[in-house]
Amino acid sequence: MATSVKRLLVGSPKKTEQAVHERLTKKTALAVFSSDALSSTAYATQEILLVLAVAVAAGQLKAFNYVIPISVGIAALLAVVAISYRQTIFAYPSGGGAYIVAKDNLGVYPGLVAAAALLVDYVLTVSVSISAGVSAITSAAQGTQFDWVYNQKIALGLVFIALIAMANLRGVRESGAIFALPTYALLLSFLFMLGYGFFHYFVIGGAAPHPGEQLKLAEGYSPQPITLFLLLGAFSNGCSALTGIEAISNGVPAFKSPESKNAARTLVWMAVLLTIMFLGTSVMAYLYQVHPSQKETVISQFARIMFTGPMAWFYYVVQATTTLILVLAANTSFADFPRLSSLLARDRFLPRQLSNRGDRLVFSNGILILAFFSSLLVIAFGADENRLIPLYAVGVFLSFTLSQAGMVLHWLRERKLMLERASADDVEQGVEVKTRDESGGVKHVPDLQLATADIHASVESQRALERDAPAASHWKKSIVINALGAAATFTVLLVLIITKFMHGAWVVVMIIPLLVLLFRAIYSHYVSVAKQLTTEGLERLLPIKHTVVVPISGIHRGVIGALRYAKAISDDNVRAVYVDIDEEATRKLREKWEEWGAGVKLVILPSPYRSLVRPLLRYLNRLRRQGCTEVITVVLPEFVPARWWQHLLHNQSSLLLKGALLFKRGIVVTSIPYHLEH
Amino acid sequence: MATSVKRLLVGSPKKTEQAVHERLTKKTALAVFSSDALSSTAYATQEILLVLAVAVAAGQLKAFNYVIPISVGIAALLAVVAISYRQTIFAYPSGGGAYIVAKDNLGVYPGLVAAAALLVDYVLTVSVSISAGVSAITSAAQGTQFDWVYNQKIALGLVFIALIAMANLRGVRESGAIFALPTYALLLSFLFMLGYGFFHYFVIGGAAPHPGEQLKLAEGYSPQPITLFLLLGAFSNGCSALTGIEAISNGVPAFKSPESKNAARTLVWMAVLLTIMFLGTSVMAYLYQVHPSQKETVISQFARIMFTGPMAWFYYVVQATTTLILVLAANTSFADFPRLSSLLARDRFLPRQLSNRGDRLVFSNGILILAFFSSLLVIAFGADENRLIPLYAVGVFLSFTLSQAGMVLHWLRERKLMLERASADDVEQGVEVKTRDESGGVKHVPDLQLATADIHASVESQRALERDAPAASHWKKSIVINALGAAATFTVLLVLIITKFMHGAWVVVMIIPLLVLLFRAIYSHYVSVAKQLTTEGLERLLPIKHTVVVPISGIHRGVIGALRYAKAISDDNVRAVYVDIDEEATRKLREKWEEWGAGVKLVILPSPYRSLVRPLLRYLNRLRRQGCTEVITVVLPEFVPARWWQHLLHNQSSLLLKGALLFKRGIVVTSIPYHLEH
Repeated sequence: MATSVKRLLVGSPKKTEQAVHERLTKKTALAVFSSDALSSTAYATQEILLVLAVAVAAGQLKAFNYVIPISVGIAALLAVVAISYRQTIFAYPSGGGAYIVAKDNLGVYPGLVAAAALLVDYVLTVSVSISAGVSAITSAAQGTQFDWVYNQKIALGLVFIALIAMANLRGVRESGAIFALPTYALLLSFLFMLGYGFFHYFVIGGAAPHPGEQLKLAEGYSPQPITLFLLLGAFSNGCSALTGIEAISNGVPAFKSPESKNAARTLVWMAVLLTIMFLGTSVMAYLYQVHPSQKETVISQFARIMFTGPMAWFYYVVQATTTLILVLAANTSFADFPRLSSLLARDRFLPRQLSNRGDRLVFSNGILILAFFSSLLVIAFGADENRLIPLYAVGVFLSFTLSQAGMVLHWLRERKLMLERASADDVEQGVEVKTRDESGGVKHVPDLQLATADIHASVESQRALERDAPAASHWKKSIVINALGAAATFTVLLVLIITKFMHGAWVVVMIIPLLVLLFRAIYSHYVSVAKQLTTEGLERLLPIKHTVVVPISGIHRGVIGALRYAKAISDDNVRAVYVDIDEEATRKLREKWEEWGAGVKLVILPSPYRSLVRPLLRYLNRLRRQGCTEVITVVLPEFVPARWWQHLLHNQSSLLLKGALLFKRGIVVTSIPYHLEH
Repeated sequence: MATSVKRLLVGSPKKTEQAVHERLTKKTALAVFSSDALSSTAYATQEILLVLAVAVAAGQLKAFNYVIPISVGIAALLAVVAISYRQTIFAYPSGGGAYIVAKDNLGVYPGLVAAAALLVDYVLTVSVSISAGVSAITSAAQGTQFDWVYNQKIALGLVFIALIAMANLRGVRESGAIFALPTYALLLSFLFMLGYGFFHYFVIGGAAPHPGEQLKLAEGYSPQPITLFLLLGAFSNGCSALTGIEAISNGVPAFKSPESKNAARTLVWMAVLLTIMFLGTSVMAYLYQVHPSQKETVISQFARIMFTGPMAWFYYVVQATTTLILVLAANTSFADFPRLSSLLARDRFLPRQLSNRGDRLVFSNGILILAFFSSLLVIAFGADENRLIPLYAVGVFLSFTLSQAGMVLHWLRERKLMLERASADDVEQGVEVKTRDESGGVKHVPDLQLATADIHASVESQRALERDAPAASHWKKSIVINALGAAATFTVLLVLIITKFMHGAWVVVMIIPLLVLLFRAIYSHYVSVAKQLTTEGLERLLPIKHTVVVPISGIHRGVIGALRYAKAISDDNVRAVYVDIDEEATRKLREKWEEWGAGVKLVILPSPYRSLVRPLLRYLNRLRRQGCTEVITVVLPEFVPARWWQHLLHNQSSLLLKGALLFKRGIVVTSIPYHLEH
């Protein structure tokens, strides 16, 4: 039954050979990789306004005007980060996620920190994107007969997550078509909206008065005048616009040849488009003087003002494409989270079962875990993206910083290699140096060397194969760019933590180290198990001295079945054990045993306290202490009723005994089922 | 660890021989058996007023005066029921609970209906008494700095239930001392209060104005004028005063000799005291014109008015003794419920484990079940006894009616016996008649004959031994008394169901038949199992054809342990099975198998969909279809980690496989533990 439901929901299994890969053109790649980054325009401007609203509420009515300089600042940061990631694309043509880059260059622990930050980030991407998508829907529903959906935000969010998770369990082909349509639809509708917005404002007339909704402030703030701290807070909130910008650098191998060049150009395009959309949205918000409100998003507000009369339908196009791109953004996390956790699981930092591909060739466990945690966040934060944002950007910028810092070290190492190659023509010497250098990278974490060495070797060999010659020679410029990127993202990270700590960032600051500790504990457990399980030093299969004990409650077909089994698994060492609670019953049993015992030794145990389990345990301990047996098999007759509720009527003593014997050394418990008819 | 906690809470085990019985004098017996009955005075009057308040709220301010005639009517009913039960005491000196009496005389199904009614009644006794006890406490707290306890009624109730359950799990000796103190304290304080109340009213002055609290109406009523239906509703509510009156007739053997006479006298005393206390309370409520209010009980209100100045301390004595007696009343259910369910379990109408005495010689499972369900009711009804009352009396009066009707048939049978004895001196003939008569009593329920015949025989033989000569000869008077009792209680039962159906009685009316169906289903299951398990027609222990299959994931110490075990339980028929998911890994395994296989046959199963479980299941099915084996033992190596969280890192595949093999015919699954160090 469960199997049929699963088949219906996720489809029939796929063969291992069905795993194929599609190479993407620049246009499709832009659609596939930029949904996460572009979707953040849906909320980034609003997040800035929410913090500025704090000053507006305190009477400084012009505070909203700061949205323009803050947005320009964020756009500048975006440019720095994008250029910085362009370097990564050339250095890691096989895909340079923050985990790989940080571990490869900075060592295992920074790699694990980056991994933890990314996992948290992926969960938050789903929660934030889905919440924002739901907000786009509920905003559109305001003033219509569907405005009740506002009270169903959480339910709506959970339905979206369930649908995306199910689609991913089926195995979404990351085919261009699925992504291209909504991404380009969003691009077109946004660009049209921005153009039309200018036209509307300067030609048709100024801003219409915004609806009289109550001003919404950022969570956890109370009205206060503008301070530098407040502006930094607004800036931090707006930095959510940068999330997803790293996606292309992770996916270089998916591009058509020449991979790196195509990927780099696509990244530039994405950054340019993101800048236009984000700045444009901020300018619209400024021109139309919209204020963050409880029930309607900022974009919905100015789109509603500008699209009136014959253009009113276009408002719904904007809202629909916004929702669609946000759902797609969540979807990318459903590809990234399971992929990263399978990578961590293969490196033994997460439970092994996360690295198993399910029967639809997807990492089913990772998908389910992501769906679970993001649903939890949606419930806990009431599907309000504004309350989730302070948690969001910390993980993102932590992974940015580690990745960029890793790149700096990468170039320094390249440089060293170059210099050494230049000074000596002997290639072998160079290899020697490289090897020494690698082991140096992990010298502070001796117990993690095993995994690191593996990964290093594979990454290094790939790099050696695919290394781009021009990038390697331009290491000077590269160092400067990546160092600038690292410094910028690190600064922003500090600003984020300081300004948002009390507003929720503390959660992420706590969770990341805990995750790293978890990774370490799992890793050292697996390593210890591997050591314990090695067959080295083990003697060949020795025979076991073996005793079989059959606890019986009387003589019936179930017991007879158990006795037959016991005799089958031991020719001469079977004992039936009966606990004497009632003298009369014991006497009757002894009589019947003559007939049915078939030569099996019957042991009667006294039980003054009427307990069944304790006398048996004592007997088993006695047997083991006598030392004439290595393993005792306890054979328990167990009823298998025809109906579920009948389980309550049977096997309660067996269950107790099983519980008491669970995990005892030298004891094997075997249940012999006796199937009842009805 | 769990064992130590249990020892701390419930004490060390007791030997079977420690079960002793105390014979009670009339005075102690009155204390032991009347707590339930007397405690109902704490709420019965208030329950009447709650319904009358409906008319007061509709403007008929004199409606409360009806409390007097209604109370007198209830007192008359009490007299009839008490006299009726006096007959039972003489007819069943070995203790005549409604289950025994109804089953013995009316047949199995009426007996089961009575049993179901009683079980429901016991659960409700606990919930109602504890809720009323908590109300006494929160009433006393009104106007003090402790009045916040009113908001903690549920928590307080649950604490009380937990404490009583724990005391009973330890095994409360039903010794006189424990019961005598609170029962006589309540009697004295109540009688004093009633006397002082009259004195205060007629000598010191009229009723002080009652506190201006909002008038509380009975749950589910809205203001309406007085109708006969409303008065019957008030009467029904007041009938809760009769609960517990049957206790003495159940416990006759606990009295000192002559048991029946002593018990009968105690019953009369109890009935008289209950009448005085109940009527006195109603009169006080009338004289002092107190109205049911949300936060204070009726008794607390008039006690507060009358005990002022130097007597103010006595108010707290009244509230304290009321609470104490209510807790004791709940405690009696904790003796009765497990006793009745053990009786039902022994007759195979309830799961066997309810008939086991725990290591403190108490029926622990029954105690836990009662605590669970009564806690559930306390939570569901907000520890408000007024909302629970409409559910309460239905079960009580149903068992009254069945018990009294059973007594009528009992006397008719006695009469027949007498007449036959008189007409023929042949004793053997009489016995024959009796036997025929018994089997006739169960002719409508052929599948239940087994149990009934047993019970009949034992009850009948006891009766024959202990039959009181005088009672047997006075059967004419007895028939009239019990018929009157049956008619009266049946009429009240109908009134209860009709007037209270919508106010909650429907729940009980639904649950009782469902419980009877449950009893029947359990009974027929046990009977069917007994038939299936009989060794009749079974051949002696035949040897089993047996194959051992060891699924392996590689070669390590865990697998080697499993292989050793497999070779120990089968000399020649062991197969190791490996699922091929990765070609390279499979090749390596084959190589290693040469070294470690020790002659065991290795079977490699292909798995194009990467599933571990399905290829194994298919292989096992193939083996069974080949028919050369009767039982397949699947030996699974299983890791036992040193820490709990490490379980998540292991055995996931084993778990899946176990789940798939659970309850499959002809398959035995044996886990061979491999203990990990850390």
